Amino acid sequence: MARKNLLYAQSGGVTPVINATACGLIEEARRHKDRLGKVYAGKDGILGILNEELIDTSKESKADIAALRHTPGGAFGSCRFKLKGIEESRAQYERLIEVFKAHNIGYFFYNGGGDSADTAYKVSQIGDKLGFPVQCIGVPKTIDNDLPITDNCPGFGSVAKYVAVSIMEASLDVESMASSSTKVFVLEVMGRHAGWIAAAGGLAQQKKGDPPHVILFPELPLDEEAMLQKVDKAVKTHGYCSIVVSEGVRDKEGRFLADSGRRDAFGHAQLGGVAPVIAGMVTAKLGYKNHWAVSDYLQRSARHIASENDVEQAYAMGKAAIELALQGKTGVMPIVVRTSSKPYRWKVGEADLARVANREKMMPRSFIAKDGFGITAAARRYLEPLIQGEDYPPYGRDGLPKYVRLKNVLVPQKLPPFNP
Amino acid sequence: MARKNLLYAQSGGVTPVINATACGLIEEARRHKDRLGKVYAGKDGILGILNEELIDTSKESKADIAALRHTPGGAFGSCRFKLKGIEESRAQYERLIEVFKAHNIGYFFYNGGGDSADTAYKVSQIGDKLGFPVQCIGVPKTIDNDLPITDNCPGFGSVAKYVAVSIMEASLDVESMASSSTKVFVLEVMGRHAGWIAAAGGLAQQKKGDPPHVILFPELPLDEEAMLQKVDKAVKTHGYCSIVVSEGVRDKEGRFLADSGRRDAFGHAQLGGVAPVIAGMVTAKLGYKNHWAVSDYLQRSARHIASENDVEQAYAMGKAAIELALQGKTGVMPIVVRTSSKPYRWKVGEADLARVANREKMMPRSFIAKDGFGITAAARRYLEPLIQGEDYPPYGRDGLPKYVRLKNVLVPQKLPPFNP
Repeated sequence: MARKNLLYAQSGGVTPVINATACGLIEEARRHKDRLGKVYAGKDGILGILNEELIDTSKESKADIAALRHTPGGAFGSCRFKLKGIEESRAQYERLIEVFKAHNIGYFFYNGGGDSADTAYKVSQIGDKLGFPVQCIGVPKTIDNDLPITDNCPGFGSVAKYVAVSIMEASLDVESMASSSTKVFVLEVMGRHAGWIAAAGGLAQQKKGDPPHVILFPELPLDEEAMLQKVDKAVKTHGYCSIVVSEGVRDKEGRFLADSGRRDAFGHAQLGGVAPVIAGMVTAKLGYKNHWAVSDYLQRSARHIASENDVEQAYAMGKAAIELALQGKTGVMPIVVRTSSKPYRWKVGEADLARVANREKMMPRSFIAKDGFGITAAARRYLEPLIQGEDYPPYGRDGLPKYVRLKNVLVPQKLPPFNP
Repeated sequence: MARKNLLYAQSGGVTPVINATACGLIEEARRHKDRLGKVYAGKDGILGILNEELIDTSKESKADIAALRHTPGGAFGSCRFKLKGIEESRAQYERLIEVFKAHNIGYFFYNGGGDSADTAYKVSQIGDKLGFPVQCIGVPKTIDNDLPITDNCPGFGSVAKYVAVSIMEASLDVESMASSSTKVFVLEVMGRHAGWIAAAGGLAQQKKGDPPHVILFPELPLDEEAMLQKVDKAVKTHGYCSIVVSEGVRDKEGRFLADSGRRDAFGHAQLGGVAPVIAGMVTAKLGYKNHWAVSDYLQRSARHIASENDVEQAYAMGKAAIELALQGKTGVMPIVVRTSSKPYRWKVGEADLARVANREKMMPRSFIAKDGFGITAAARRYLEPLIQGEDYPPYGRDGLPKYVRLKNVLVPQKLPPFNP
């Protein structure tokens, strides 16, 4: 029987290391050409599969595929597009199988978070039902670190390192100027539903009293009075206060502070930005001069300061996905299993997609300090290994990282356009 | 005659490499103990000198002084404090001389921008006048790159590298998601009066069509219509648009866009933030989903992605300041002299403080593209060498850079408090 082709797709928000996973997957597949066909990739994720826009990764050189390991963004494109239940979205599921058939796809790898695990699981079911079984493997990726079962999610560790290093550096800046200038600095980070990324800022605290002095988590409604007291105390004790705030912080009525209906002078609604809201509160109530930063996409694309452990795990997940496929598995996802925190040791494990799908791993309350404004020793024990090690991209003579741009050659189409 | 002591002070906004200058200065002074006394440093800059708060750097270990080379922020503290003219601020100038006398200071090194050069120059004059001549040496530092005569200013190159790398990375992120998500990304950078930092974003463009597609400079009033057309064209051509905007961009009436009187839902005035204003315009007029980032202090403290050339020049300026002192010079500043752009070659030169003081070097119009939204080949030729090379700090096992915190032991005071 002819070797079956593989189809890989990236899903949802990209990370500094999602391409490292693609690299691990493609390199491992190339090592098994005797049993595996070509690796195709969905252009812009699953949208490209529905539209039969498949990228033929065999057209890419060995060096370019290797360079994916150190290139941020999503090399084949990703998308925000969630397939609904099978009954609701039957035409789309059937289209996927049709595309799989047309291109001799025997393996589907979906690289994303909880929604993607759900989709991969459903695709495996529908394939069986339609008499075209496809091995469906989920591959974990999310900076939000909210997948269950796996110890952590590739992508998170690098964002965590970026946030910890950034607040450490900016705090040194503020500290040196505080006597005559800015006294309060606010850094806004991602994580709308869970405070994992905000918590990572706490790693910058190497000893008691170190910045950040205040962390604001989406898990707890903002107690403005308590926060202001904490800020004031930090300024009086250390001369300045350094704050990390999650974009998902809400007020006591449950409204996002970032969506507080601000308008600029032109009357345009202002999108996002909880940092200026917190900074504004501090200056209005305490009078301290503030500065604030919103790192937004910078944090989730900063491959230049990626965590080595994260890069290794991201690569390992891609490689393991191929190994699972070769073992004949379907409806599964490779995961990171921690076997020791000090020294940090981990191995690759495996989880059923049905157990991963649609379940968010929230940050335990035990990771947040009693007063609600910092992290605990337990959080530190968990988080610290994830930012360990550096894995720098190569740089060119122009002073810029050598990030690869693939050729992304499409496979000739065989089907009529999809009109759902 | 007893060896005279040295007094060093950091001034104004700190940079990722101002401590590298301190390192070069202290290490070089320690190599000449036969001729030079101790190096003292003003706590929080010149404020510490007025208050007779002098840090004795001889209490710091060789390793800690060496670590200054890779530590951001200002290790002795800096301040925003400008001495006025000698007639207006006579008491302060006299106090400086009094402190110098009390601590046997023969050399004053003032590490800052144009204002600091002016102050150092005036201190040299007043010392002569009061019969206590002090050798006053300016040492260049400013991320704004606005000092005249020197080819560039230590600090700028590292900020430039941070901005170029950051917009390159974030653009890869946006590009991979644009088909179904964010189409316009805006990164706000510093540089209120001159567009040097915004221009550095243009270095990320390795070939025509690369991001950033639009740069907004403080040198040109914002032409909203022309900008929107340019953004729309980029989205239609490339699928997305990546924008770098200087915090100092003004409207046609000369008002800063960042100071456009925004208030949040709590009624607090919003400080700064031109990125959300630009992003809001784009979404209101063109309908594209936007994201924006404000890098603020992150950019000027990001020692983790410093430019190697910048670190070397910063160190060299500190070292050269001591050499000038040993040559008996006063009223001068070491500068960077470029002798070749390709390959990049530079040497240390020297300039009279009187010629450096209070003169801003604006970015030439020839560095901005005709349409006002990009940089020219001339700009690239000038800027590129400044971001070349990487100079990573060492990291600990905790995954964080090993930044040093000095002991900062104060010299016993000898004078009554200063009450100007």
